Amino acid sequence: MRQLLKNALVLRDARGAPTAENIMIDDDRIAGFTLADSVPGYAPVDLSGRLVIPGFVQAHVHFCQALLRGAADDMALLDWLRTRVWPLEAAHDEESVYLSALLAGTELLAGGATCACVMESVRYADAAARAIDELGLRAVFGKVMMDHTDTPPELGGLPDSFIETTRQTLDESLRLLKKWHGAAAGRISYAFMPRGVLTTSEDLLLELRKLSDEYGALVHTHACETWPESRLVERRRGQTEIKYLRRLGLANERLLLAHCVCVDDEDIHILSKHRVNVVSCPLANLKLASGIAPLEKLADAGITLSLGSDGPPCNNTLDMFTEMRFASLLQKGALGQPTAMPAPQVFEIATLGGAKALGLDGDIGSLAVGKKADLAALDWQQPQTAPQKPCVAGLVYSGGAHMVTDTMVDGRFVYRHKKHVAVDTAVLRRQAEVALERLTRRFSPG
Amino acid sequence: MRQLLKNALVLRDARGAPTAENIMIDDDRIAGFTLADSVPGYAPVDLSGRLVIPGFVQAHVHFCQALLRGAADDMALLDWLRTRVWPLEAAHDEESVYLSALLAGTELLAGGATCACVMESVRYADAAARAIDELGLRAVFGKVMMDHTDTPPELGGLPDSFIETTRQTLDESLRLLKKWHGAAAGRISYAFMPRGVLTTSEDLLLELRKLSDEYGALVHTHACETWPESRLVERRRGQTEIKYLRRLGLANERLLLAHCVCVDDEDIHILSKHRVNVVSCPLANLKLASGIAPLEKLADAGITLSLGSDGPPCNNTLDMFTEMRFASLLQKGALGQPTAMPAPQVFEIATLGGAKALGLDGDIGSLAVGKKADLAALDWQQPQTAPQKPCVAGLVYSGGAHMVTDTMVDGRFVYRHKKHVAVDTAVLRRQAEVALERLTRRFSPG
Repeated sequence: MRQLLKNALVLRDARGAPTAENIMIDDDRIAGFTLADSVPGYAPVDLSGRLVIPGFVQAHVHFCQALLRGAADDMALLDWLRTRVWPLEAAHDEESVYLSALLAGTELLAGGATCACVMESVRYADAAARAIDELGLRAVFGKVMMDHTDTPPELGGLPDSFIETTRQTLDESLRLLKKWHGAAAGRISYAFMPRGVLTTSEDLLLELRKLSDEYGALVHTHACETWPESRLVERRRGQTEIKYLRRLGLANERLLLAHCVCVDDEDIHILSKHRVNVVSCPLANLKLASGIAPLEKLADAGITLSLGSDGPPCNNTLDMFTEMRFASLLQKGALGQPTAMPAPQVFEIATLGGAKALGLDGDIGSLAVGKKADLAALDWQQPQTAPQKPCVAGLVYSGGAHMVTDTMVDGRFVYRHKKHVAVDTAVLRRQAEVALERLTRRFSPG
Repeated sequence: MRQLLKNALVLRDARGAPTAENIMIDDDRIAGFTLADSVPGYAPVDLSGRLVIPGFVQAHVHFCQALLRGAADDMALLDWLRTRVWPLEAAHDEESVYLSALLAGTELLAGGATCACVMESVRYADAAARAIDELGLRAVFGKVMMDHTDTPPELGGLPDSFIETTRQTLDESLRLLKKWHGAAAGRISYAFMPRGVLTTSEDLLLELRKLSDEYGALVHTHACETWPESRLVERRRGQTEIKYLRRLGLANERLLLAHCVCVDDEDIHILSKHRVNVVSCPLANLKLASGIAPLEKLADAGITLSLGSDGPPCNNTLDMFTEMRFASLLQKGALGQPTAMPAPQVFEIATLGGAKALGLDGDIGSLAVGKKADLAALDWQQPQTAPQKPCVAGLVYSGGAHMVTDTMVDGRFVYRHKKHVAVDTAVLRRQAEVALERLTRRFSPG
């Protein structure tokens, strides 16, 4: 199938400027850019009045928590986990995991994110993968792995249904990998996702190093999110989380660490030297009062950065525009430098940075000949943009998910004229509300 | 004229919860709440599927800067003022001030703000007031007053057209006050707006104390925005800005200070004791790297807080939802307490707090019998709200200006079904773009 996306302004990447040009698409890939108004053999698709941008890469998100949006506002982190997020997440069944993934996935696509790195819950990860497949989203996904509880005593342990043996969690991960890695014509891939150092055994982490090599699969985990937790890791493991991961041989370009708020200069040096990738979650870190990740310092050290929203209970939206805006503003504020983290840098982090972090920059992250046709079209005509002309800084400082009108993945519109192709969102909302009621009835705090 | 707003959920104030009830409106005021489906003599207005909230009070905004949105992204503050914002603002003519005010005003109304405290430029303030009048917005406005330049030498002085004599700026302010104070059936009022201590003479400030008493008019100024400026005030005036304002007799309940980032405990005590009101601009303070205002501390001291967006070049939007979200998140982050500045508190600041700060809380800031019918209706059904039910925390952490469908001021819809009653925004955009081109041609940097 050949298409010519016409009559839009096109922003190919963060370093470019919006240009009036048409995009030729052969099946799932960009075949060329042209000023020609028609190209023989290419079906015209009118995008008049739109600004076309590369799809965002949402590099850290818990789809299973979308159903729990707003369940834990204004709460302290430990209470948040112990009394709400963990028991609620543990009360999931297959249907609620599926609906939660549809909610999160539709929100991402409606906001111009075409690819996500999805950390699923312990169980029912197949249901989430099914939702991703149906929606047409590109994703690296994995079930979360926990075979150990070294968590602070105040947390009172993990819910029973979370705990697996090392063997169980490996077997289930490998089963999922074999089923989903490369599925949907390569649109879905699998990654190993240990929750964090305090909830995984050393044996498991050592095994994941081998499996990551064997299957060429990413390892994605939380690291250095909060100071109390980071200090606890240091007491329990005798070294910082980053040094510990290096000692186990996990520090390489296939490791993607979420957060990295609590890293020192030595940690940053290790991350840089071993080409470890980092995904920052500025809003979640602020809402849970974890701190502000030193993004400028990490970027200066040559570390590949990406952006994620984390879970809806700690954000509460999955809006890459908001993440960009606050990634930039928080660096300015934290460093006292209004010139810090300028718009093109943060837009690149949200697109090509995410692609690099997931090892997908050969295929996505910018609009270029030979790359996948993963893109979003926006309506620039908004009250909060006038009278500025379309530009990268305008996207970062005035943009919002609601501006997106169309989203394409693999050359196929999955969101068109503000409607999802695969899902009726009004029906989904009602199903999700019912599923949430059922889940809440199953939920027993503490 | 009597109206019955029907079929919506109504959130009367920050301490309440959305309730299915209908609102009776007599002319410009709320006459009652009822469960009755019809009331004799009241014309029904269907708001099915909507959440009705009190209109936001945008308590610090420069309408004349809306035309300059995006003109100074990622720049250092002094450069920002010297090479862009001041000379661009100085290049305004009457038409560009008028169109800029229409842009800002339509953005506010489209985002559910029904009242604004508008600091206009030195000249052409009538044009801004005319725009406010035509749009149907409620506003306290004033021309900015500068009769002195004690600014840092690095700034290189103010543009010529900014500088007035003490007499000139007083005469012009009094002319505007007499013309506009109480205009549009009380919807518009006038306030004296010295730009800041470093750009006003002591004589002027002393005169404003008298005039404020005489006319019962607010004095609104910038104070303690950045540390370098606050230290300079201390060197030049021999005491902190807050102490200096108290010494001149200006510290009272008719003084509204924008920013207050750089205040110490003594300053806070003075603000509290003299019932001075504060408007915080969290996004602008972050974008210009000025810092984070100690809102929790100010609130704990009993000071009335309100929220503002400042100017579009330093924000870049005028979205009260974003200001609420980041007022809350930044306090959590700055204090390391996820429980800080919870949603109901910040929603109250954005509504009733703003009303109190402007001395209008007898009339606006919440939905109550006898108060003005100043309100906004929202469409809660958004990707980033599901599956949460309508609530204050959802508005703060997932809300956005784009959710607003209808806005009413003085019992009259000024924005209905996402269209402004007074203005065709497509035409306005084109006019604004032309006006910006002309202004840019008049503009001479440096």
